[in-house]
Amino acid sequence: MARVTAYAAPSATEPLGPIMIERRDLRPNDVLIDIRFCGVCHSDVSHARSEWRAETYPLVPGHEITGIVSAVGVDVTRHEVGDRVAVGCFVGACGECANCVAREEQYCLPGITLTYGSTDRYGEYTQGGYSKQIVVDQDYVLKVPDALALDVAAPLLCAGITTFWPLRHYQVGPGSKVAIIGLGGLGHVAVKLAAAMGAEVTVLSQTRAKEVDAKRLGATAYYATSESDTFSRLANTFDLILNTVSAAVDVDGMLSTLALGGTLVNIGAPATPMSLSAWSLLRNRRSYAGSLIGAIRDHQAMLEFCGEHGIGADIELITINRVNEAFDRLLASDVRYRFVIDMTSLA
Amino acid sequence: MARVTAYAAPSATEPLGPIMIERRDLRPNDVLIDIRFCGVCHSDVSHARSEWRAETYPLVPGHEITGIVSAVGVDVTRHEVGDRVAVGCFVGACGECANCVAREEQYCLPGITLTYGSTDRYGEYTQGGYSKQIVVDQDYVLKVPDALALDVAAPLLCAGITTFWPLRHYQVGPGSKVAIIGLGGLGHVAVKLAAAMGAEVTVLSQTRAKEVDAKRLGATAYYATSESDTFSRLANTFDLILNTVSAAVDVDGMLSTLALGGTLVNIGAPATPMSLSAWSLLRNRRSYAGSLIGAIRDHQAMLEFCGEHGIGADIELITINRVNEAFDRLLASDVRYRFVIDMTSLA
Repeated sequence: MARVTAYAAPSATEPLGPIMIERRDLRPNDVLIDIRFCGVCHSDVSHARSEWRAETYPLVPGHEITGIVSAVGVDVTRHEVGDRVAVGCFVGACGECANCVAREEQYCLPGITLTYGSTDRYGEYTQGGYSKQIVVDQDYVLKVPDALALDVAAPLLCAGITTFWPLRHYQVGPGSKVAIIGLGGLGHVAVKLAAAMGAEVTVLSQTRAKEVDAKRLGATAYYATSESDTFSRLANTFDLILNTVSAAVDVDGMLSTLALGGTLVNIGAPATPMSLSAWSLLRNRRSYAGSLIGAIRDHQAMLEFCGEHGIGADIELITINRVNEAFDRLLASDVRYRFVIDMTSLA
Repeated sequence: MARVTAYAAPSATEPLGPIMIERRDLRPNDVLIDIRFCGVCHSDVSHARSEWRAETYPLVPGHEITGIVSAVGVDVTRHEVGDRVAVGCFVGACGECANCVAREEQYCLPGITLTYGSTDRYGEYTQGGYSKQIVVDQDYVLKVPDALALDVAAPLLCAGITTFWPLRHYQVGPGSKVAIIGLGGLGHVAVKLAAAMGAEVTVLSQTRAKEVDAKRLGATAYYATSESDTFSRLANTFDLILNTVSAAVDVDGMLSTLALGGTLVNIGAPATPMSLSAWSLLRNRRSYAGSLIGAIRDHQAMLEFCGEHGIGADIELITINRVNEAFDRLLASDVRYRFVIDMTSLA
């Protein structure tokens, strides 16, 4: 056991602060990573504050992790000391259920082991990336291409894979008309990825405030959903819509903008039920789908793609002692577009 | 102009009765059909009673039509006098919009010309198959394979194509696990089609009343949605679900039975909005889709498939003077499984 400094939520209502946690001794397939950067995801706030479920405390958030391998277990073949690596939202899956066998282990039926806040198959409680080091099974450790800086790569481990997967699955490419709803942590990466894949990208945001940014990121069109005629002007237009917004939205309005056979993919998870008319699906034989992160092999494909196309997140680098402020600013949408913690700032 | 006997709803509240209507003189591409049989679809009741919109009266319902060609226009090449033919839910489309160009004219953006209750591109009001004859552009007339009797073939023109299209589109075949929700006009044909395609078919109906029928039609399993543990027992099971029910249903419950990447297709159109949780889509990356009838080429493919596999509807043949009784019995689900009018009974 190694004792490692970290930053944890002591309870659902207290600010995060420094703590010592234990990292397990390396098992044969384990990799020890010195964490350099960790992105601050909206779900870190939700978990830290027990908004989705009652968490176990102290809780160390963080699942957008990049760093350097500092030790490997005796059976590790995929990684070496000194490798630039990354860890995303999960660090384990059963490997035996139908979904794992189909190599979509992110949908593991007994449940994935989340990078933090999960009990893993050894009965140990996982703690996340707001810490100096982490121990992860080699199969869940990704390689970061040399072309990608570790700071802007960190948010790709959640915001990148979550948007990359549906863009790839629905075969976005030249000629595709893609809409991204919401220009936040996920949305801004989605615009870059879809544009790099050759799609014609439209951003739909609540107001016109981010129009210049959207165009800079690669969008060719921008609409404000607060303007009443936006959905009617865009009727029957898009092949694919990624809805990155976790708040309640006008599902019928969004669906009405899909062309023949188009799909609206929810990658956010609104807490309240959504309402829609059957006719919104019947017309143009539209689909409303969900998508959660991606398989490990897709994470690697995403990182390679980002390396080739020079895609990183737009980040605001912070020291660990500013993470509580970052949580508050994140909730106020006051970040363009992702906070990343410089983990060298953690003593 | 030819005057033809028909059966029409004089208003939204009166029973159907005999009437004389006019059929246009043959244009160069027109086919005159002596109607032999016409199925009674649930939507005939909805239209006759102005349940979906305010209709124009008198209204002659009927869009599951089979008959014999009795005359052709000078430019008709696809059909000859004496041919066994059929007409389905629509008899025209613009031919120029994106969806028509994509050969999915059932989704014609300016709107298809419905077989009855539509104003066509000549400004004429269409009247349906509860009549002795109909005039239809040759492109919207289907050939009925010799192996199919005209009476059991009639319902295929709506119930058949509406279920065939999604089964084909979602690539149902050996190894597929398909659920059919609702065993009525659409559902009973869906079971036959899916079984003939090689799928393992499960029927979900409200009660156990139709279990014997479902097995006879080709289902290997049957569940009652009124039994509280049905959805939980079937968690993560199906690749495709066809929901044929037009009433409000438990969408989250249905979605929970879909396996990885599975799709719930609504082919019915509930009048009230549907409610679902985003997590029902996110888990197993499920999709909720809609589908409306099919393209004309798909109608023909469906009829060929039914001819090869000996699939017709299970029908109760009635004379035209019993159509009002049939409407009432249809609403009471008192038919196994489709009323078909013998049009020789119309004087």
